[in-house]
Amino acid sequence: MEKFKVTFHPDNKTVAIDKGKTLLSAAISLGLNLNSSCAGDGVCGRCKVLIKKGQVSTLPTGRITAEERRQGLYLACLTTALSDIEVEIPETSRLDLSKISEEEAYLSRLKGVYSTPESIEKSEALIKKDIFLHSPLATKLYLKLPKPTTEDKISDLERLYREIRKIKDVPIMQTGLANIRRLGSMLRSADFKVTVMLGNRNDTTEIILIEQGNTAKNNYGIAFDIGTTTISGQLIDLNTKKVLGTKASFNQQATFGSDVITRIVYAQKEEGLERLHHAVIDGMNDIIQDLIRENNIDLNNVTCCMCAGNTTMIHLLLRVDPTYIRRDPYVPTANFVPVIRAQETGIKINPRGLLSCVPGISSYVGGDITAGVLACGMDREEDLCLLIDVGTNGEIALGNREWMISAAASAGPAFEGSGVSCGMRASKGAIQKVKIDKKNLSASFTTIADEPPRGICGSGYIDILAEMLKIGIMDKNGKINDIKSERIQNGEFGREFVLTDNIHINEVDIDNLKRAKGAIYAAASILIKHMGLDFKDVKKIFLCGGFGTYVDMENAITIGLLPDIERSRFRFVGNSSLAGAKEILLSADAIHKAEDIARKITYFELSTDAKYMDEYIAALFFPHTDLDKFPSIKF
Amino acid sequence: MEKFKVTFHPDNKTVAIDKGKTLLSAAISLGLNLNSSCAGDGVCGRCKVLIKKGQVSTLPTGRITAEERRQGLYLACLTTALSDIEVEIPETSRLDLSKISEEEAYLSRLKGVYSTPESIEKSEALIKKDIFLHSPLATKLYLKLPKPTTEDKISDLERLYREIRKIKDVPIMQTGLANIRRLGSMLRSADFKVTVMLGNRNDTTEIILIEQGNTAKNNYGIAFDIGTTTISGQLIDLNTKKVLGTKASFNQQATFGSDVITRIVYAQKEEGLERLHHAVIDGMNDIIQDLIRENNIDLNNVTCCMCAGNTTMIHLLLRVDPTYIRRDPYVPTANFVPVIRAQETGIKINPRGLLSCVPGISSYVGGDITAGVLACGMDREEDLCLLIDVGTNGEIALGNREWMISAAASAGPAFEGSGVSCGMRASKGAIQKVKIDKKNLSASFTTIADEPPRGICGSGYIDILAEMLKIGIMDKNGKINDIKSERIQNGEFGREFVLTDNIHINEVDIDNLKRAKGAIYAAASILIKHMGLDFKDVKKIFLCGGFGTYVDMENAITIGLLPDIERSRFRFVGNSSLAGAKEILLSADAIHKAEDIARKITYFELSTDAKYMDEYIAALFFPHTDLDKFPSIKF
Repeated sequence: MEKFKVTFHPDNKTVAIDKGKTLLSAAISLGLNLNSSCAGDGVCGRCKVLIKKGQVSTLPTGRITAEERRQGLYLACLTTALSDIEVEIPETSRLDLSKISEEEAYLSRLKGVYSTPESIEKSEALIKKDIFLHSPLATKLYLKLPKPTTEDKISDLERLYREIRKIKDVPIMQTGLANIRRLGSMLRSADFKVTVMLGNRNDTTEIILIEQGNTAKNNYGIAFDIGTTTISGQLIDLNTKKVLGTKASFNQQATFGSDVITRIVYAQKEEGLERLHHAVIDGMNDIIQDLIRENNIDLNNVTCCMCAGNTTMIHLLLRVDPTYIRRDPYVPTANFVPVIRAQETGIKINPRGLLSCVPGISSYVGGDITAGVLACGMDREEDLCLLIDVGTNGEIALGNREWMISAAASAGPAFEGSGVSCGMRASKGAIQKVKIDKKNLSASFTTIADEPPRGICGSGYIDILAEMLKIGIMDKNGKINDIKSERIQNGEFGREFVLTDNIHINEVDIDNLKRAKGAIYAAASILIKHMGLDFKDVKKIFLCGGFGTYVDMENAITIGLLPDIERSRFRFVGNSSLAGAKEILLSADAIHKAEDIARKITYFELSTDAKYMDEYIAALFFPHTDLDKFPSIKF
Repeated sequence: MEKFKVTFHPDNKTVAIDKGKTLLSAAISLGLNLNSSCAGDGVCGRCKVLIKKGQVSTLPTGRITAEERRQGLYLACLTTALSDIEVEIPETSRLDLSKISEEEAYLSRLKGVYSTPESIEKSEALIKKDIFLHSPLATKLYLKLPKPTTEDKISDLERLYREIRKIKDVPIMQTGLANIRRLGSMLRSADFKVTVMLGNRNDTTEIILIEQGNTAKNNYGIAFDIGTTTISGQLIDLNTKKVLGTKASFNQQATFGSDVITRIVYAQKEEGLERLHHAVIDGMNDIIQDLIRENNIDLNNVTCCMCAGNTTMIHLLLRVDPTYIRRDPYVPTANFVPVIRAQETGIKINPRGLLSCVPGISSYVGGDITAGVLACGMDREEDLCLLIDVGTNGEIALGNREWMISAAASAGPAFEGSGVSCGMRASKGAIQKVKIDKKNLSASFTTIADEPPRGICGSGYIDILAEMLKIGIMDKNGKINDIKSERIQNGEFGREFVLTDNIHINEVDIDNLKRAKGAIYAAASILIKHMGLDFKDVKKIFLCGGFGTYVDMENAITIGLLPDIERSRFRFVGNSSLAGAKEILLSADAIHKAEDIARKITYFELSTDAKYMDEYIAALFFPHTDLDKFPSIKF
C-alpha cells in the first residue's frame, strides 16, 4: 500500500498514512482534535483545513464556499493525499477540549455541577437528607478479630466472615483468591486487626480488599455523570457523605461526532469503538486524578465509582458495541449492567475497586434519566411531575409514584452549539445571555468567563430567539423580517441577524433551533396527551442539565420550548444525573430504588407514533401553531 | 556472588549455582526429581548422589555409611559445591514420577480409582443412585430467544436473563464484562439461538460463557482427589453423569517432601510455595490432557473441576501459604474456599471454567474426608459408623446422622513406603502381598504389575508383619526373635528379616510401622472412648483409600491396625474422596450437603489430649497391650 506523509501545522506533527485515508483520520491518529460533529461524514463542515503544500483529492461539498476553496481550504474528512502534504489547522477548526476551570464552570453554572450543597438542599425538588440508608457501594469496616486459640480454631477466612457477620447481615459473601493468598500472613502481621473493604456487588457482598490496621476512615468514591458533551465527576467521602470536590471536562469523544448517533456510526469504523472507549476513560481518569490531587487523597483509597449516563455513553464506557442501539428495533446490549471491577474498563482507582452503572430504561433514555428521576424524587411524588433534560439529546419523563413514562426527542445538539453556524458549547467566550435594543437592534450580551465572544451557546440562542420574536425582528415562522438595519444582512443561508463581528444567527440556524425546541415540546406534549392529561395537570416541572441552571425561563417559554404554565411549578434542578449518581453511590437502598425506577418507567417510542409528527409540526412555530397553548405570551 | 557449574549425569544437565546452594536445589532447578521425603533436611537419607569430579563441602550425617562415603556418595541436600563439579544420580535416588498406567493401577487397585461403576453400585456403602438432584457445578442451557420487536425491546442481557429464568429459578445472576462485550453481535449472528454455560458460584448463578447455537451436549467436568502421594482425576459427562475415564499420577510434590509437614516446611523456603504449587498444577493438567485426548474432547468443553484434598494440598493448589497449618494453634487460611475461575490457579480447562474445593474440617482433616463421609453416606446413617482413611496421613471420622467427630493421627507415611528402609509407593515392582513359609521362613510374594521386586508397599508390610507375628519370627513388641535361619540377619539397624536380595525389613522399620499402626488405632479408639462408646458399638467401618481396596483385612486386624470386630461390618470403599468429589461436582445439593458435613464434624485435637498418649503407648504392641481387645487373634 502506497503511503504519504502528512504534516500538520502549527503542531508540526507528521504521520505516514495509507493512500485513500482521509486527513481527518490522519489528524486523529496523531491525537489532534479536529472539530467534527458529524463524525467525518462531510456534513457538518467543521473540519476545514488549509493545504499548504502537496496534492490532494477531495469530494464535492456545499460546506466549502468558493472563496474558501480559493484560499485552499478543504474538509479534512473528505480529502485524501496524493503526495506528501503539509496541512495547516485553523484555530476555528480545533475542538476545545481544555479542562473546565472551577471559576469558569461556576460562571456558566455548567450543567449545574457547581451548585453548592446548600443550594441543593434548598431546592425542595432534590433529595431530602437521609431518605436512603447510608450504605455505600464500598464500605470499610475495621475489625479486631479474636485470635485463634485451641478452643477457637476456625480458619482465617471463616474468622473474618464471622466477625463481619456480627456487624452486618451478609447472606452471600464472596472473596477473590488474591485476598485469600495474602490473608494468613496479613492477619498475623497486623495482630488480627484489619480493615475490610466490602463491596455491594450484584446483591452479594464481596470482600474487595483487606488492609492492615484501621484504615476505615479513608474511603472515597466518585459519582460520574457521563454526558455526550460533558463529563462531570464528584469526589465523595463515603463515610461522611461529604462532597469533597467536583470536576467537569468536555467529553473527548466529541472529536468523533457531536451526538450519540454519529458516535455509534463511528464505533463501527476500524478501531472506532476502541477510540471512543479510550476517549471517555481518559477523560474520567483525568477527572479522578485532579480530584485526588486537590484533596490530597491516595488513589488506593478511592474504592468505587457510580456512573450515570445515556445508554450509548455507558456502552462506550464499557467498550460494548453500541451498534444495535440505532438498528430497528433499537435494543441496547444491556440496560442493567452488573457491578464490575473498575480496572476492567481502564478506570484507575484502587485496582480492586468497583464500578457500577445506574440502570437505564431503553436505548435512548438512559441511566442519567433514572438518576435524575431519583434525585428529583419524582418516584415519591403524589403530584404529576414532568422532567425535561435538554442536553445533547432531549429526554422527557412524566409521572408520579404510581406510574411513569418517558420518551427521547430527536432534538439534536443545536442547544449544545452543534449544527448552528456560530454555535458553541458553554465554554469560555460563549455568548450566554443576550438583550436586543428595541430601537437600534443592537445586541448587548455577556460571555462565559467574560472572554471576548467566540460563539453562541444554548442559553444565548434562547435569549436571541425570544428577543427577536418580542421585538419583531423574526416572525412566528422563524423568518427574519426585511428590516432596514445594519444588523440585518443577507447571507448565503438566508437573512441573518448580526450580534457582533463574525457572530450572527441566520435563518438556517433558526430553523435548526426551531426543530430542536419543537421536538422537545412535542415530546412532552405527546406523553401528556397519551396519558389523557393536559399541561395544566402538571404540578412540578423539573428542568435538568445546564438547561436547568442557566436558561432564562421566561424566554424559553416565549419561544415555545417550555410550556406556558404557572411559573412557580418550575424547578431548576441542575445536574440531577450527577446528584442521583451520588445518592446511588452512597446507598444500596438507592441502588434498589434506581432499579425499580428503571423497570417501572415505560418507554414511549416517538418515531413510530403517527400523532407525534402532528405534534411536532404544530410546534414548528414560535411559540406554537396553537397560540391558546401560550396564553401569557403576547407581542 | 561466586557461582559454580554443577553437571548431573546421566542426564547431562548443567546449572550454575551460587556458592552455598545445595546440590538438591541445583537438581530441583533443573527439574530433576531426586527422592527427598524430608524436603532437604538431611533426615531421610534418600537423595544420595555420587560426586564424580570436583570439590564439595558436606555436613555430617548418619545416613551415609562409611562404605558409601568411600564410594563417593553424599546427601545432595547437605552438600554444596566448592568448584565446578560433576554429579551422578543413582537410579535408586530418583523419584519415580512416571504416570500410573491403567493396567498397573487396576492391578494395584491404586486408591480404588479404577473400581468399575458396577462395583461402586454394589457397595452399599457408596452413594445410592440419585440421592442428590442433578445440578452440576456448571450447566449448559440451549436457549432460543424471542427476537426483539417494537413491542419487546428489553436489552439483550435482560432478554437472556428472562429466558434463563423461565427455565431455572435464579435469584442472583452474575455476568462478566467479557460476555457482555460479545453479546450483541453473537446473539444476532446466532439468530438468537445460543447456549449459556451457567456456573454455580458461591450461591449465585454466573453466566460463565455464551456460545452460538446448541452446544449443550458438550459439557464435561473433572473430579479430583489430590492426595499427598497420588493425584486422581475423573472425567465426567455432566449431562449424563457418566464417568468417561479416570487417571492417576504420583503427586510431583514428593520431590519436596513425602508428607504434608515436610511440604509445609518446604513452602517456607525461597520459591518453595511456587514450586509446590506448580508441581500439583502440572500434575493435574497432565491428567486433564490425558483424559480429554483419550476421550477426544475439546478442552473448551471442560467447564469445571471439583477438588477434594487434605487442607495442605488445597492450600498448595491455590498457592495459599500453608505455614499456619503447622503453627500452634494450627489454623488454616481457609477451610471453605470460594468457587474461583480454574485459570486463576493455572488449571487449564475452558478459560472461564470454574474450580471448586470440597470444604475441609480443620488443618489436618480436609475436604477429602468431607467428600469421603458424603460418599459413604455416614451423614445419613442411623447406625454408628467409623471411617478410616490411611493415606500418607491417617484420618478418622466417627458418628452418624446425628453427630460426627474426627481426628488426624500423626501416623506418618510409613504405609506409603516412606521412613522404612525398603519401603516404596504402590507402583511397579512393589511387593504387595506376602506369605511366609512356616518351615523354612521363605517369603513368597506378588509384585505390582508382576515386575521384579523393587521394594515393599503398605499392604506388603502389613502382610509381612502379620506373618512374622503368626509364625513367631517377631514378638509382640516388634523384636525379631533370634532364630537360626539365613532369612534372619543382623544389620546396622538391628535384626532383619530378608525377603529377597536387597529387600528386607529390620527392627527400625518394624518400629516405624508399629508407631504408624498404633497412631491410627489409638486415634479411632480415643474418639470412641471420648464419646463414651466401644468398638463393639460401631456398626459400619468404612476403609478408604488404597488401604480400603487392597489390604488384607485379617492381617490388618492381626497386627492391631484395625479393631477386632465382626468382619461383616467392614466396608472397603476405595477412593471415597474421589467418589465424593464426583457427587459434589454433579449436584448443588451435594455441595450444600458437603458444607453441612464440614461444619457439623467436630475436630478432636489428639496432640493436646493427655489420654491419647496413653492409648497410643498401649497400641505400640502387636496387636495391642490389652489382648482382650483382640479376642479373635490367637497365636
